Amino acid sequence: MKQIESIKEFGGWLNRYQHGSESCHCDMTFSVYLPPQAATEKVPVVYWLSGLTCTDDNVRTKAGAQRYAAELGIALVIPDTSPRGNEVADEPERYDLGQGAGFYVNATQPPWSQHYRMYDYITRELPALIEAILPVIPGVRSITGHSMGGHGALICALKEPGAYRSVSAFAPICHPTVCGWGEGCFSAYLGNDIEAWKAYDATELIKAGAPGMPLLIDQGTGDEFLAGQLYPAELRAACEERGIPLTLRMQDGYDHSYHFIATFIGEHLAYHAAALRK
Amino acid sequence: MKQIESIKEFGGWLNRYQHGSESCHCDMTFSVYLPPQAATEKVPVVYWLSGLTCTDDNVRTKAGAQRYAAELGIALVIPDTSPRGNEVADEPERYDLGQGAGFYVNATQPPWSQHYRMYDYITRELPALIEAILPVIPGVRSITGHSMGGHGALICALKEPGAYRSVSAFAPICHPTVCGWGEGCFSAYLGNDIEAWKAYDATELIKAGAPGMPLLIDQGTGDEFLAGQLYPAELRAACEERGIPLTLRMQDGYDHSYHFIATFIGEHLAYHAAALRK
Repeated sequence: MKQIESIKEFGGWLNRYQHGSESCHCDMTFSVYLPPQAATEKVPVVYWLSGLTCTDDNVRTKAGAQRYAAELGIALVIPDTSPRGNEVADEPERYDLGQGAGFYVNATQPPWSQHYRMYDYITRELPALIEAILPVIPGVRSITGHSMGGHGALICALKEPGAYRSVSAFAPICHPTVCGWGEGCFSAYLGNDIEAWKAYDATELIKAGAPGMPLLIDQGTGDEFLAGQLYPAELRAACEERGIPLTLRMQDGYDHSYHFIATFIGEHLAYHAAALRK
Repeated sequence: MKQIESIKEFGGWLNRYQHGSESCHCDMTFSVYLPPQAATEKVPVVYWLSGLTCTDDNVRTKAGAQRYAAELGIALVIPDTSPRGNEVADEPERYDLGQGAGFYVNATQPPWSQHYRMYDYITRELPALIEAILPVIPGVRSITGHSMGGHGALICALKEPGAYRSVSAFAPICHPTVCGWGEGCFSAYLGNDIEAWKAYDATELIKAGAPGMPLLIDQGTGDEFLAGQLYPAELRAACEERGIPLTLRMQDGYDHSYHFIATFIGEHLAYHAAALRK
């Protein structure tokens, strides 16, 4: 792992790293914000998973999260949204399949299965790497994300009981097996068997009995993707049936952009910090 | 003036407007953040002037300023950095001359003099337009900015006594007549008479007896442009000679980026809010 950039911010350091990934069989780039406290002690970590088309640069530039991380003494780990490179399968004319659209699954279908192993990367390889090298408390992690990354955060927490102290999401894709974005990626990465898709669908995981944990979700009512892609009502119905505590806040008038995320990221990070400091 | 975008953020609205500018003889675009308080009362205004290559989008996306503006109940007005359009003179192969590099002067030399009247636009046309149409308190303004925009903020405040309650700057070009960026633009826009340049140089304005007001400046010591372009020591010497109160904070390890601005924008807006609420 080599550090390729380091920028001082809020008394801490916003670093970018590159490493050869065993899961994805290619070089991967990610960013970490280390708060000022990390200079003298190990700190807990919040993982941020980004949405379609993003790299690690979007949230670190647009969300205003580093200010809160510095105040709360938590590190932010920001992975990329897919494997990348000339040798990595892609659909260059599509923003919602291939590079930038890994959907946080382990692909099983060629040509995607060679590199698109984002689920293993996010839940296993990246935490092990970070906890071995950076000043963070091993195993003390929470996870959150936006849109496709909100979906990612929910499935990682639901599929890995005990791995994350808390989980939240901004405008997540709650039920990817029934929305266009999810169908497009899941059919390519996972094939035609819809049972394989359900293993990466938060609503289906809950219906199927995944161990519950509290879920915090903010969703803008002015979000242009709410009706066609996100399906929070289906997730809510599944949570109610299972008795899983879901806090779904419909935020009046907010859209799908980072301006929405910026508005509520402070509350999410405070929520995670409370769980991480327990 | 027509509104071309409106995004909810921190309970207020981030709007973008377009209008035909009399000063610049072309359509101009600017952004305004109206805090939640503006729904029920008129609020004071902080003008933000951006640096080379920016539009109104950079600071509103990257600085995290809207959070503080919402807390403090102040509007942010964010103009573009130059006139733009196919009919507007430009040097497309240069980032530091022409469109995106207006330098906040009234150009006197062809072909620039037809559109590059940013000084009049910022100090006269834009405040009159905004105070006529938006819920802001007439005449209650402060001004700040970054790099070329820090230069702009300083010269607007120094040349227009009484127009701004307070002024601050992030890594400003303090002495443009002696740095490469300033020489390139001033020779093009203002011609070869260096006396004409001095009318838009904060250090020279102070030396020449401009009415003083307190100046707040943050400057990163890790700024890649500090040695060659910014010259804060020359501004400090001029302020000391004139007895003008300059707070020049050399911030250890910070660079020239918006991560630096994000770190200190809250303190600057609180400083302006205190002056605006007096």
